[in-house]
Amino acid sequence: MKKTLIALAVLGAAGVAHAQSNVTIYGQMDAMITKKTGSTTSMVAGDNNKLGFKGVEDLGGGLKALFHAEMRFDPDTGTTEAGGARPLFQGQSRVGLQGDFGMIRLGRGLTAVQESGAGFEAWGEARTRAAMTSYVVANYNSDPLHAGSSTNRWSNGLWYNSPNMSGFQLNVTLGTKEAQGTGTPKANPYSVSATYNQGPVAVMAGYERNPVETKFWILGGSVQATPELKLQATYAQQDQGSTKAVNPKTKGWQIGANYNVGTGQILAAYGQIKPDGVESTKRFALGYEHNLSKRTFLYVDAYNEKAPVVGTVNSFDVGINHRF
Amino acid sequence: MKKTLIALAVLGAAGVAHAQSNVTIYGQMDAMITKKTGSTTSMVAGDNNKLGFKGVEDLGGGLKALFHAEMRFDPDTGTTEAGGARPLFQGQSRVGLQGDFGMIRLGRGLTAVQESGAGFEAWGEARTRAAMTSYVVANYNSDPLHAGSSTNRWSNGLWYNSPNMSGFQLNVTLGTKEAQGTGTPKANPYSVSATYNQGPVAVMAGYERNPVETKFWILGGSVQATPELKLQATYAQQDQGSTKAVNPKTKGWQIGANYNVGTGQILAAYGQIKPDGVESTKRFALGYEHNLSKRTFLYVDAYNEKAPVVGTVNSFDVGINHRF
Amino acid sequence: MKKTLIALAVLGAAGVAHAQSNVTIYGQMDAMITKKTGSTTSMVAGDNNKLGFKGVEDLGGGLKALFHAEMRFDPDTGTTEAGGARPLFQGQSRVGLQGDFGMIRLGRGLTAVQESGAGFEAWGEARTRAAMTSYVVANYNSDPLHAGSSTNRWSNGLWYNSPNMSGFQLNVTLGTKEAQGTGTPKANPYSVSATYNQGPVAVMAGYERNPVETKFWILGGSVQATPELKLQATYAQQDQGSTKAVNPKTKGWQIGANYNVGTGQILAAYGQIKPDGVESTKRFALGYEHNLSKRTFLYVDAYNEKAPVVGTVNSFDVGINHRF
Repeated sequence: MKKTLIALAVLGAAGVAHAQSNVTIYGQMDAMITKKTGSTTSMVAGDNNKLGFKGVEDLGGGLKALFHAEMRFDPDTGTTEAGGARPLFQGQSRVGLQGDFGMIRLGRGLTAVQESGAGFEAWGEARTRAAMTSYVVANYNSDPLHAGSSTNRWSNGLWYNSPNMSGFQLNVTLGTKEAQGTGTPKANPYSVSATYNQGPVAVMAGYERNPVETKFWILGGSVQATPELKLQATYAQQDQGSTKAVNPKTKGWQIGANYNVGTGQILAAYGQIKPDGVESTKRFALGYEHNLSKRTFLYVDAYNEKAPVVGTVNSFDVGINHRF
Repeated sequence: MKKTLIALAVLGAAGVAHAQSNVTIYGQMDAMITKKTGSTTSMVAGDNNKLGFKGVEDLGGGLKALFHAEMRFDPDTGTTEAGGARPLFQGQSRVGLQGDFGMIRLGRGLTAVQESGAGFEAWGEARTRAAMTSYVVANYNSDPLHAGSSTNRWSNGLWYNSPNMSGFQLNVTLGTKEAQGTGTPKANPYSVSATYNQGPVAVMAGYERNPVETKFWILGGSVQATPELKLQATYAQQDQGSTKAVNPKTKGWQIGANYNVGTGQILAAYGQIKPDGVESTKRFALGYEHNLSKRTFLYVDAYNEKAPVVGTVNSFDVGINHRF
Repeated sequence: MKKTLIALAVLGAAGVAHAQSNVTIYGQMDAMITKKTGSTTSMVAGDNNKLGFKGVEDLGGGLKALFHAEMRFDPDTGTTEAGGARPLFQGQSRVGLQGDFGMIRLGRGLTAVQESGAGFEAWGEARTRAAMTSYVVANYNSDPLHAGSSTNRWSNGLWYNSPNMSGFQLNVTLGTKEAQGTGTPKANPYSVSATYNQGPVAVMAGYERNPVETKFWILGGSVQATPELKLQATYAQQDQGSTKAVNPKTKGWQIGANYNVGTGQILAAYGQIKPDGVESTKRFALGYEHNLSKRTFLYVDAYNEKAPVVGTVNSFDVGINHRF
């Protein structure tokens, strides 16, 4: 009888759990205090603050349906990202199918090239902190038709990701030509990346053409040199010839390292952005993440950036990152 | 001892599950690619994209408290519905009580008449696709005081639904006269529908007066003719005499069918909208839904519509619908 | 073997439950119908309507990471609070750590003084109803740089709450000087409250300086006089000398009572707000909450308010409150 009761309790618990298992809530909160040369001390998001809802449905025969609806917000003000300028589900809103053929999704999200780039930057392309994201992409903007956009996403997109083939994966994003934000795409934008990730080595190559026909390509590589040390590097170039008659090209590169010190990790990077006919912008960045658990860490970062016109900016920040 | 451990594990799981059982997350994502005569290929929501939170509390004696807070969004851009023009909880935000007397709720939601109409249209009044919704309601707008409104909801409403009495149900919505959107209601808007749903037959009759005193009535019926075939029909009329001196009336009707073909269903419909003194708008629509599971299907739709001034529009779409 | 199956089922259920236990959904819906002298009958939020997501992670050694992301909305229209004027996570968006040292959080939320005040008002500072909130704070606004703000929160804040020391607790909020809303703080705003809560007695003292350097202080006390009767009182003063040359001070006080009558409770309060050189505003308020469960109650409220220029306003409301 006791056994029966237990079994019933199990079924009850499993029943409820099953009823709720269609949706998983996930996310991250990250807030930091920062001080930059010439600016007042302020509070901002160090990394993306997200509250996401996702689900996977097994359709049988290896086929799955899946969706993501992922909010982004500013933790310091409680608004949707960028002071309310961005969509509610800024992170992504995609629905699609996954199977032997790979994965096809419709909606909004990071372009194939932008999604592939984060693994080759020491801060994992955190939203702010000392992350070298602008150096990774040579100031390229995937989404120039939306004022205040996050510069790395497309709306009205179709995503294809190949299956993982011995570490190799192909990723494609196609956009429609429909009007959006401040204009209509000149042509269908597209983004293609190829990634290889096996053992200690990862490499990527990507090419993208945005809605105003800026052309962008990128190469990236990383290596787990020792159990403690990971090294990263990227080289990228954009060509704004379609909208800019003079000096349309910009080159960018950066190298980085993560060094595990047991209780946390040290992050370091250096990079340059070189627009045609303009002096380079250069940044040296250093950070430390102190792990409180697998889901939570405290961090400090500092960087020194030299840019034409702006001059030298020193930045310091301290913050907390919590995933759920 | 092992048994005890199991029991504890069970209690633990049940405890957590119980703690979360106050709220159920539900929703739907639906994205499609569509091409219409004279328009570029674009991505839109085929049906409502929603992320809802609901709960029911048993108060004893047959009484229950219940709430719904239901977001709507555009999957192609990640914004709240209609490019951010609509409320966060556009789907509904209602709280109330249910008991032997029926159900009373306060808040925002579909009017009684609009909520009853969806069962008499072949696409279940999907948001776009080839759905005949405008033919069902003869272009009537329940909510003319909100620019960009979904035309079928009221804010500041009180809902009453009678208990189901041998298949018969009475539904009433009353609105306040408080200022909203672009104006103040001329009188308290109200909406009344009676529905009968028993065995293979369903019928409805509804009458509604909106905030600017447009009068609307509708009749609907459906029959499950064979195990595979369901037929639907509606006839409706609106009278805009309160705001339009000349030709204030518009009539609309449509007939539809759903035919189950095992792996999915075929949908078909034809309808006309006839405003006083203006030529009719006519649409013939056809669709197919291919079931991947009870929660997920792929679809294709096509329609041909002839309207005065606009001329002939052909529309084709293909999409995916996933419920969670 | 059967035992093994049960164990697996348990693990399965526990696994799912564990996966979801990082986030707890909580909230409240509250809608009421109200009629005030000179206004049409309308529907509004009686108390805060919230949908919150929170989590606590045990980091070991008494240390915890915690977060809150709490939406607020208008149930009558479905928009984010105040017709969409306020942030998505208007309730709060905070992340931080808790330990022996107390609790430190970063983000947005009620100021220390505002958070402490609610326990000394008969309606618990419900959003509207007959709550005496403006009397508690003498019309003070913590957040004057945001048009349409809720007047009691700060963005870009750091919160410290001491541990509970024999009923005594110290609470501090510090704000940055960064630009926000319609301006930049003149100085770092800060808010300090000390609370004592032991047995039948609770008292508080608070001092706050807002971003435009308005100074505010408050004293509050409550006593559970009998098992049925709780009495509350507050006295507060604000000094707007930094922005207002003439008559900068405003005083406010109120007394209240909650009387438990078994099936619910009676609420009563009286208060005055006295700005320098202007006649006082006075309110007498009465309410009744009828409990349907620990999570749900129905209520009626009435108040009579006499204010200079406006004259006498009588208000009546009836509503429902449901927590989840």
